Amino acid sequence: MKLPTANPPQVDYANDPYTWDNQVGWKQWRPLRPFRGMYYDVRRRLPFYWSDVVDGLNYRTFAGTVRIFFVNLLPALAFTLDMSRRTDNFFGINEALFSSALAAVVFSTLSCQPLTVVGITGLISLFNYTIYDIARDQGIIHLYGPLICWVSIWAAITHWAAAIFNLCDYMRYITDFSSTSFGLYVGIIYMIKGVEELVAAFDDHNRSGGYLACVIALVYWFTVYRLEMVGSTTFLKPWMRKSISDFAYPIATLWWVGFSHIPGRLAETHQYRVPHTRAFYPTQDRPWLIPFWTLPVKWVFVALPMGILLTLLFYYDHNVSSLTAQARKFPLTKPAGFHWDFFLLGCTCFIGGIVGIPLPNGLVPQAPVHTDACTEYQDVLKVTKEKDDEPDAEFHQHNRKKIEAIEVKEQRVSHWLMALALIGTMTGPLLDVLHTMPRSLFAGVFFVVGWGSVGSSPIIANALFTWRERKFIDPDEPRLRLKPSRIWLYIAFQLAGVLSSVAISQTIAAIGFPVIIISLIPLRWLVMPRVFTEEELLILDAPTADADVVLASMGGQPTLPEVRLAEEKRRRENADGEQGLSSGYLSGTTGSMRSREVFKDEEERKIEEEREKRRLSDGVQPTEWTGHD
Amino acid sequence: MKLPTANPPQVDYANDPYTWDNQVGWKQWRPLRPFRGMYYDVRRRLPFYWSDVVDGLNYRTFAGTVRIFFVNLLPALAFTLDMSRRTDNFFGINEALFSSALAAVVFSTLSCQPLTVVGITGLISLFNYTIYDIARDQGIIHLYGPLICWVSIWAAITHWAAAIFNLCDYMRYITDFSSTSFGLYVGIIYMIKGVEELVAAFDDHNRSGGYLACVIALVYWFTVYRLEMVGSTTFLKPWMRKSISDFAYPIATLWWVGFSHIPGRLAETHQYRVPHTRAFYPTQDRPWLIPFWTLPVKWVFVALPMGILLTLLFYYDHNVSSLTAQARKFPLTKPAGFHWDFFLLGCTCFIGGIVGIPLPNGLVPQAPVHTDACTEYQDVLKVTKEKDDEPDAEFHQHNRKKIEAIEVKEQRVSHWLMALALIGTMTGPLLDVLHTMPRSLFAGVFFVVGWGSVGSSPIIANALFTWRERKFIDPDEPRLRLKPSRIWLYIAFQLAGVLSSVAISQTIAAIGFPVIIISLIPLRWLVMPRVFTEEELLILDAPTADADVVLASMGGQPTLPEVRLAEEKRRRENADGEQGLSSGYLSGTTGSMRSREVFKDEEERKIEEEREKRRLSDGVQPTEWTGHD
Repeated sequence: MKLPTANPPQVDYANDPYTWDNQVGWKQWRPLRPFRGMYYDVRRRLPFYWSDVVDGLNYRTFAGTVRIFFVNLLPALAFTLDMSRRTDNFFGINEALFSSALAAVVFSTLSCQPLTVVGITGLISLFNYTIYDIARDQGIIHLYGPLICWVSIWAAITHWAAAIFNLCDYMRYITDFSSTSFGLYVGIIYMIKGVEELVAAFDDHNRSGGYLACVIALVYWFTVYRLEMVGSTTFLKPWMRKSISDFAYPIATLWWVGFSHIPGRLAETHQYRVPHTRAFYPTQDRPWLIPFWTLPVKWVFVALPMGILLTLLFYYDHNVSSLTAQARKFPLTKPAGFHWDFFLLGCTCFIGGIVGIPLPNGLVPQAPVHTDACTEYQDVLKVTKEKDDEPDAEFHQHNRKKIEAIEVKEQRVSHWLMALALIGTMTGPLLDVLHTMPRSLFAGVFFVVGWGSVGSSPIIANALFTWRERKFIDPDEPRLRLKPSRIWLYIAFQLAGVLSSVAISQTIAAIGFPVIIISLIPLRWLVMPRVFTEEELLILDAPTADADVVLASMGGQPTLPEVRLAEEKRRRENADGEQGLSSGYLSGTTGSMRSREVFKDEEERKIEEEREKRRLSDGVQPTEWTGHD
Repeated sequence: MKLPTANPPQVDYANDPYTWDNQVGWKQWRPLRPFRGMYYDVRRRLPFYWSDVVDGLNYRTFAGTVRIFFVNLLPALAFTLDMSRRTDNFFGINEALFSSALAAVVFSTLSCQPLTVVGITGLISLFNYTIYDIARDQGIIHLYGPLICWVSIWAAITHWAAAIFNLCDYMRYITDFSSTSFGLYVGIIYMIKGVEELVAAFDDHNRSGGYLACVIALVYWFTVYRLEMVGSTTFLKPWMRKSISDFAYPIATLWWVGFSHIPGRLAETHQYRVPHTRAFYPTQDRPWLIPFWTLPVKWVFVALPMGILLTLLFYYDHNVSSLTAQARKFPLTKPAGFHWDFFLLGCTCFIGGIVGIPLPNGLVPQAPVHTDACTEYQDVLKVTKEKDDEPDAEFHQHNRKKIEAIEVKEQRVSHWLMALALIGTMTGPLLDVLHTMPRSLFAGVFFVVGWGSVGSSPIIANALFTWRERKFIDPDEPRLRLKPSRIWLYIAFQLAGVLSSVAISQTIAAIGFPVIIISLIPLRWLVMPRVFTEEELLILDAPTADADVVLASMGGQPTLPEVRLAEEKRRRENADGEQGLSSGYLSGTTGSMRSREVFKDEEERKIEEEREKRRLSDGVQPTEWTGHD
């Protein structure tokens, strides 16, 4: 049987009609031209719809479906167990599955970016139970349903507004400075949640369940970590090691769930398990529709700022997850569509709000896992010749493995199959299966996912870099050109953001954390270029939106402020000699001095810099999330 | 203050007077010239005695003392907890400390090889409790003390005989074929002991202690593993990372012992701890001297074969530990002395026997740790140039760290200080400190030590090698010249030895396991050269006694049988053409065919082979035992 084929059009991303450059008069103001981004998003992507189906009929899509199903479901359940405990079961397993399934159905069929997996994150859990705490403090716990519903409605409205008025364009200003900070923050929150889940497993009458939970969480973590690592080795055949990596979660889950049921010492500890619920009904005794019209008007207005905070969170979280799912390291060809998808997200906020389920949005560490799972990799032999740096040294040949991403199966089938699987999980028999899972396993999931973000965080990598002995570092490493104290200054800015976010998340002010994360963007654009030189920022930072397919939806790549500043400065210097140095900051920093010394010829340097950047990003790894050492 | 210096003599190892080559008549028979080996051992080493003291007055020796104290004490306690449970406290903590201290005093002051640390191994524990089981089965449990005493006396006598009649020479016939099998066997036994220790931590009234024990054992294992790994990184300063590796055990032990005492959930689990005993007294209510004269004559004779088995075990175990402690990768200059030390071991067997303590002998995974701890390493920058194997590829410079062993502090001070520390540990106050240690920690010790042997086992490395995709292996890897099926045949021989030893260790016949291990030596010399070609054995195997300092004490290196066979064959071939192939085995193997095809020129091949061997062994690692991936 021959599979059907589709001939999608070629897109000329460099000359996309959606741009704001060279626009004059009122036309340069984004809010004055509503729906422009959404229109072009759809116009760009719609011709690919049929190919999105056809390109999904292959083994890779099936493997991707299994992997992303587990990687989506397990953390969602984990967050829900936490959220359920902290909201007195307002949000339970059924709500979580409903939400995940709703998001998967909507985004697999209607979105411009079907690779971006949408579901329940740890941050929405944090958001929801913090509002629960606020409601409890205010004595309106009985109004929690309508309150959170109105928060969602306001969020939906502001989502729609952001999408209509082309505000997603501003995602192009996000650099790794803030997105890696966000990644580290998310990772730390996940690790904390893992520990909290273990603490909750203790019971003063029967401590053995708690300690057993610790054991299961640790071995589960180790198992997934090791299995995912197999893919990067050279053992077995390529398809075998790839499969072991792909199915690390199902394998580890089946194994350790089974382990926890071994009769005797293990089964008798009466571990906490996923609670049993009645299929398709809300966890609490309530109808699905939240009576949002019962909320006093005063509280409706209180819900407004909360809704805006939620929109801020989703604006950042959802779009960053779309960005990472469509990063340049994946050889993508189909266009992205940020405006349209953010509008859709407003719709799921609205629906989710009025039926009282946790609102889904883009999954930050998991979204690239989906793209990764849909990527055809090839293990390519890379032969190098090496010799000691001595006159008479002999050459030795080294055979290495290089993983090359050949093609991404860009399609909506795996997302859609995942939706079906999630709906299936909502039925009675599969809820029984979920009930067999010990909750300690989810602590393990938190550790895997959290450590995936923490262990591979560039912030930590930079810190570790400064602690290495310099002489053992390859000389073409660009960070060698920076003083460690400058790298630490950069890290300090990031850590200030991360740690204050983590701290605020432990308090009643937790819903304010998106403000901190978002505020890193203007900090990066206004303050950082005056503290750091162009060279430093070029080495340490990069725009997060780096792929052509992505930039087309945002009106192209902006000029970085440090580049503009440096150019202005050089222009003035050329005109006035050294007198032109007006900015105290700029002339005072050592980095700026060094950059002038080292690079005589501006052109030469720029080219070299770019080359280095590309070289760095050429080392494609399956995903940054599969675990690092 | 200037430290005293010593000017030890230079030894010409190549022309050592102790040799059996070119001896004629009765003079070529080792047993007919008693004491010859012992005499030369002492004559060679005695001139170094003063330098053995002087060379120990430095920081490295101090660091080595701390490291080896913990690496000796913790496993000894771990084995003793196991042995104590299985011999109804006949061998308890006090006996173990007495034994370790006795061995340390004797071997630090009198031995020819003060680097070889002597103490309590898992195998003597296995040996002792198996005899206990036998005594119980025979209904003479009340005679266990005298019986084991007689076993020790017979062992002492046969030790002395072996030393006097120069039988330690035969250690030169040991190759990695059997010694790596032994290493893997020991590792597996240790891992099993770790699991058994955890199982013993469960208590049907209070399971939480058991699960907490599992947690502590796992995290302790992980902690030591990671801390020891720090030394091979390039983080921090060289002395810092070296110190962290050196003190991995003390750091992890202090930390997790403290953890286990945190009030609340942890302390209240009432974990099993090291039992409290009365200082300097036997654990059971008995005098130190065993009334060995009360044993019926019948049982004295039953003890004889057991004593011989014990001698076989120690002959192999002790001498292999001396070999690994003096392997060629350590730049040693002072002479070894196998005969003299084995005589000394007979003495400790005798003393240990009549006072009823577990008999000490050379510690197989720990002995090289002592040498390693006394080695001054230097992290040397190794610069290489690398380029892709393409016409126009550019060179990239790589800076790597190479650890070079500069010098070994060959001395007896660290061993002697360890003896003092062990004696200190026998006193009341320090026994109280020991009592604070949870027994689960020792399960962790078993895992660290056991995994050190299993994870770095060349048998497993060979198996993994065959599972790797060949194209990603560097072409100068010699094993690439062998068919995987041939490597597996080699592994199969080793695994047969290892697994039958492990199996027998679980039965009442456990005391017979030395026979299996020892029988690998004639297997290697008589059978293997007829199954494998010279090339195969040259690549897969090597003499374990490879250092000049060591070989001098054994009368030089013997010619390997496969080399002799291959030479004979080639001689016949040269004389008769292809007709000369008489051995069915030899001509039938594929390896032999290939070796003939590949290597036309015999001389050329030999030189190349040797070069490769040396290249392989040049990559000095701090120790094979510090943990591998």
